[in-house]
Amino acid sequence: MDVGLFTANNVWMMICTALVFFMHLGFSLLEIGLTRQKNTINILFKNVFIICMGLLIYYIGGFNLMYPGDFNGYLGFAGFGIEAPILPDGSLDLTYSEGYTYWTDFLFQGMFAATAATIVSGAVAERIKLGGFMIFTIIYVGLVYPIVGSWQWGGGFLSTLGGDDAGFHDFAGSTLVHSVGGWAALIAIFILGPRIGKFGEDGKPNAIPGHNIPLAAAGVLILWLGWFGFNGGSVLSADPAGTSIVLVTTCLAAAAGGMGSFIFSTILYKNYDLTMMLNGILGGLVGITAGADLMSPFESIIIGLIAGVIIVLGVALVDKLKLDDPVGAVAVHLICGIWGTLAVGIFGVKAGVSQFLYQLTGVAATGVFCCLTAFIILIIIKKTSGIRVSKEEELEGLDLHEHGMDAYADFRMNQH
Amino acid sequence: MDVGLFTANNVWMMICTALVFFMHLGFSLLEIGLTRQKNTINILFKNVFIICMGLLIYYIGGFNLMYPGDFNGYLGFAGFGIEAPILPDGSLDLTYSEGYTYWTDFLFQGMFAATAATIVSGAVAERIKLGGFMIFTIIYVGLVYPIVGSWQWGGGFLSTLGGDDAGFHDFAGSTLVHSVGGWAALIAIFILGPRIGKFGEDGKPNAIPGHNIPLAAAGVLILWLGWFGFNGGSVLSADPAGTSIVLVTTCLAAAAGGMGSFIFSTILYKNYDLTMMLNGILGGLVGITAGADLMSPFESIIIGLIAGVIIVLGVALVDKLKLDDPVGAVAVHLICGIWGTLAVGIFGVKAGVSQFLYQLTGVAATGVFCCLTAFIILIIIKKTSGIRVSKEEELEGLDLHEHGMDAYADFRMNQH
Amino acid sequence: MDVGLFTANNVWMMICTALVFFMHLGFSLLEIGLTRQKNTINILFKNVFIICMGLLIYYIGGFNLMYPGDFNGYLGFAGFGIEAPILPDGSLDLTYSEGYTYWTDFLFQGMFAATAATIVSGAVAERIKLGGFMIFTIIYVGLVYPIVGSWQWGGGFLSTLGGDDAGFHDFAGSTLVHSVGGWAALIAIFILGPRIGKFGEDGKPNAIPGHNIPLAAAGVLILWLGWFGFNGGSVLSADPAGTSIVLVTTCLAAAAGGMGSFIFSTILYKNYDLTMMLNGILGGLVGITAGADLMSPFESIIIGLIAGVIIVLGVALVDKLKLDDPVGAVAVHLICGIWGTLAVGIFGVKAGVSQFLYQLTGVAATGVFCCLTAFIILIIIKKTSGIRVSKEEELEGLDLHEHGMDAYADFRMNQH
Repeated sequence: MDVGLFTANNVWMMICTALVFFMHLGFSLLEIGLTRQKNTINILFKNVFIICMGLLIYYIGGFNLMYPGDFNGYLGFAGFGIEAPILPDGSLDLTYSEGYTYWTDFLFQGMFAATAATIVSGAVAERIKLGGFMIFTIIYVGLVYPIVGSWQWGGGFLSTLGGDDAGFHDFAGSTLVHSVGGWAALIAIFILGPRIGKFGEDGKPNAIPGHNIPLAAAGVLILWLGWFGFNGGSVLSADPAGTSIVLVTTCLAAAAGGMGSFIFSTILYKNYDLTMMLNGILGGLVGITAGADLMSPFESIIIGLIAGVIIVLGVALVDKLKLDDPVGAVAVHLICGIWGTLAVGIFGVKAGVSQFLYQLTGVAATGVFCCLTAFIILIIIKKTSGIRVSKEEELEGLDLHEHGMDAYADFRMNQH
Repeated sequence: MDVGLFTANNVWMMICTALVFFMHLGFSLLEIGLTRQKNTINILFKNVFIICMGLLIYYIGGFNLMYPGDFNGYLGFAGFGIEAPILPDGSLDLTYSEGYTYWTDFLFQGMFAATAATIVSGAVAERIKLGGFMIFTIIYVGLVYPIVGSWQWGGGFLSTLGGDDAGFHDFAGSTLVHSVGGWAALIAIFILGPRIGKFGEDGKPNAIPGHNIPLAAAGVLILWLGWFGFNGGSVLSADPAGTSIVLVTTCLAAAAGGMGSFIFSTILYKNYDLTMMLNGILGGLVGITAGADLMSPFESIIIGLIAGVIIVLGVALVDKLKLDDPVGAVAVHLICGIWGTLAVGIFGVKAGVSQFLYQLTGVAATGVFCCLTAFIILIIIKKTSGIRVSKEEELEGLDLHEHGMDAYADFRMNQH
Repeated sequence: MDVGLFTANNVWMMICTALVFFMHLGFSLLEIGLTRQKNTINILFKNVFIICMGLLIYYIGGFNLMYPGDFNGYLGFAGFGIEAPILPDGSLDLTYSEGYTYWTDFLFQGMFAATAATIVSGAVAERIKLGGFMIFTIIYVGLVYPIVGSWQWGGGFLSTLGGDDAGFHDFAGSTLVHSVGGWAALIAIFILGPRIGKFGEDGKPNAIPGHNIPLAAAGVLILWLGWFGFNGGSVLSADPAGTSIVLVTTCLAAAAGGMGSFIFSTILYKNYDLTMMLNGILGGLVGITAGADLMSPFESIIIGLIAGVIIVLGVALVDKLKLDDPVGAVAVHLICGIWGTLAVGIFGVKAGVSQFLYQLTGVAATGVFCCLTAFIILIIIKKTSGIRVSKEEELEGLDLHEHGMDAYADFRMNQH
């Protein structure tokens, strides 16, 4: 192994780790921007908690649950804590991988882990009890996410659906990260019910405007930046051809997603809708994530454009179903996650019927498992400690009731 | 070619690409911070549109217009779309460059492309029609910017003014990026006219205070960070000596620009003016951009200090001319862009009369072409769809009229 | 020396430099977020000034004061300005180091330098005179910080306390950066006195709520990101094993710090306190900084958890002493800085009685020197130009009096 090459690879992976970490700021800003100021502290608390607890729980057990080594393909566990492969002379065994050290591997994967819970956080905002959400996070990040991940990235049954060299393909996690979060978000908003005032007596949805759109926009651009690491790092080395095409497909899909949502929503609603364009960018990013390594630039633009259209339709569908998803997490992470996963069977170098069926299997297996586990966890929380704050607390804001603190103490606010 | 070295080079270029992308967040925050809250959504919409459309338009034709290969030195086009050089075995041809792959090249240049329009966006804020601005962006980013770029970076006539080894020098774009945006900004604010209330009946300028200075300051620091990639990446490899001196000159010029503006404006106006110091930093950055590879640390400090002084004078000059530039884009990008370009003939290893004349030629050629094309595009837009919003819309805010949306729904605002 | 390896090393160090630079945005946002809106411009001005002046002063003399080459171990100076080692053929001497060029070295260290003053800035916010603070910054960053740094990182007496191979250990600056700032913060708030209204007539502390908690939270996450460079770059190369373990210990300590503060403050005060969790993260980061290269993942979690508890106790202690530290700088940077430094003698591969005594010596020597110099500088400023703004200015806000400018011109504010 060439030391210079290994070092360059590891540098890239460490930077990607930092960028994925930074996505948590993006998620936090997006989520507070699109909700009301009276719940801002609560949302920040949830998100900061997720980062801290997510990393610790992944250290305690998640990493070894997701990468159990040789296992039955469905569930394995390599033990608590992390233990680096050490050579007889006490130094770190650098033959662990061509692209990074054991420590880099752990940290990169650990930064991914908390993302699943962050996605849920946005959907359930403004009405979930903090205690219940924290318990959900610990279980979902600690058990559900790594088990699903082991099926594919840990070498489990999804990765070998079609025999040794063929199977489900999910490059950076349209399904394994985004839809894992998205399914739980869907189940959670079904169980929680909509925010007070979201649907009128006639059943028509009311817009509940976000309170800080500049922060929401900043959040989306930070997330796009983070995706350089999310997808770029999923090459698992700094292989020049591999990483650079992935960045090109990622960015083109994001741009196309934004344009797709912008154009389609302008035609549909005769209005330049910034939030839609921002969610279109995220839809494009989620959509390209499964096949960013397989697509040509042109194909990635098509995938992004379609994702942008899907966002507009998805947001309308969620409203139609009388579900309340304040940030559009279901449309972005679940629906575009599914779209991106299936697109691997339609576009790119692996396109074909059998690949499409592998993709469908991956989507279905993940969906069933995540819905089931999320439902069980959330129903138990609901029946025991309760899952939704009181009506009074919801109306007055969670910041006051759970935190006794104001996000913007010096500003005068409108009550609503 | 050493694989480790090539990989390290490409890693650096990819990171620089990400940093240049991140500058769009910096521009967005700076621009909304220095304007009024009633136009915030509109400004964010413009900026997000520019990122998405800019990248797509550069994919469609800009890249091959800017780097047409062998051409007459004035205008060439290598065809639509992008097509990577592929080896017979189907893999990417890594001999394309010593510093990066074809994909990295495209993406790095693509991130630069949209910047020219972003600069204009700040100058025309709070009164331009969104539709007209979008049309302008497409043409200016798709045609004008890459044609000017081809004259120098594409190997065109500016690069060979003095024969094979001599000619115009513009390391990272004081002229080719910043003044290209700056000239269009100047023409646009001339055609648009000032915002209602900017100049009193006596012709004296009134300050229209920005509504969110913390975001403006954050924008400037993000732009400084982005300049690590803007200038650092313009070395086109990770050459250790080349990149590290560029980062040193860039940062020292930025610091000196901030100090220059601070000291000079404090002497002049007896006031600690934060906005002036922030624009001084940007002036220093723009000023060093043309010669960041040629200057000693000391020379870069001198260039930055002068840029800082120029900012203070430039802002006053724009006011004097009864032009209205809400964010100071003309002073920062045009005047300091010219200063930085000429400084290459005065300081650093290429200083001399003939070099100064090459620099002057580059400034003049770019100025004439950009003013002419910007004028034609904008006048056609004005005569057809109209370029300025109605008086009522300007007074009530573009957010309400063009987007039906509020940037800060929960906050109570002052009307003005 | 392998060119690929050297290039990869230098790339890593340049990125770390950029990340440390970015910490200044984190500090700025944290500080304005936790204080009142009427002093926002003033705080931003101070912080932007620190970045610009800090870098220039480090260029003028700081770098050569901190790294004087062969010297008596207490005070040395290698001359004004910076001068790169140049080979006979005029190119940069790349044998300067295995991990980076001379220019990268200067810039990385220069970005560190201003941090000490930034830490003080938070503690003295909302009542210090701008002029006095700027003078303090110039002297403290220009003289005190580099002299203390020379004792250890410049090869001075602390680095050889126990003979050639043993001595004080401070990997990335729990003592040499954070406590250097922390001691000055302590002295400064003692001399300045508390803000009007901080302590009631009965001596009980009143909470003065911060005005923009989302920005404070963003600041902390940006600081965490910056710590990837702060600690990761302190390896002084991209050595894969060395850098990646440092990132793991850094992130685990941060996460544990957040959880430690969260759990301990919830038990103590029956309240989910976001600010405490945020400061707990910073405490964990400061705490691991001295020994990030020596600890196992498990030990770094312990160090972080204890740092989190210390934050809660430290904030209470500062209140008890009737000191007013608006952002918790003393608890975070001084107390956790000391904790992290001593922890090197308790945990990790160097643990032992003699190492503990070296650590104690380093803490004490730094403490005595910093307290003494900070006291002298600040007392002279107090006796000459005065150090605290007038009562009227403090009540009406520094933005109005020192800057004639409003941070949030369009928003309606509460007076307090």
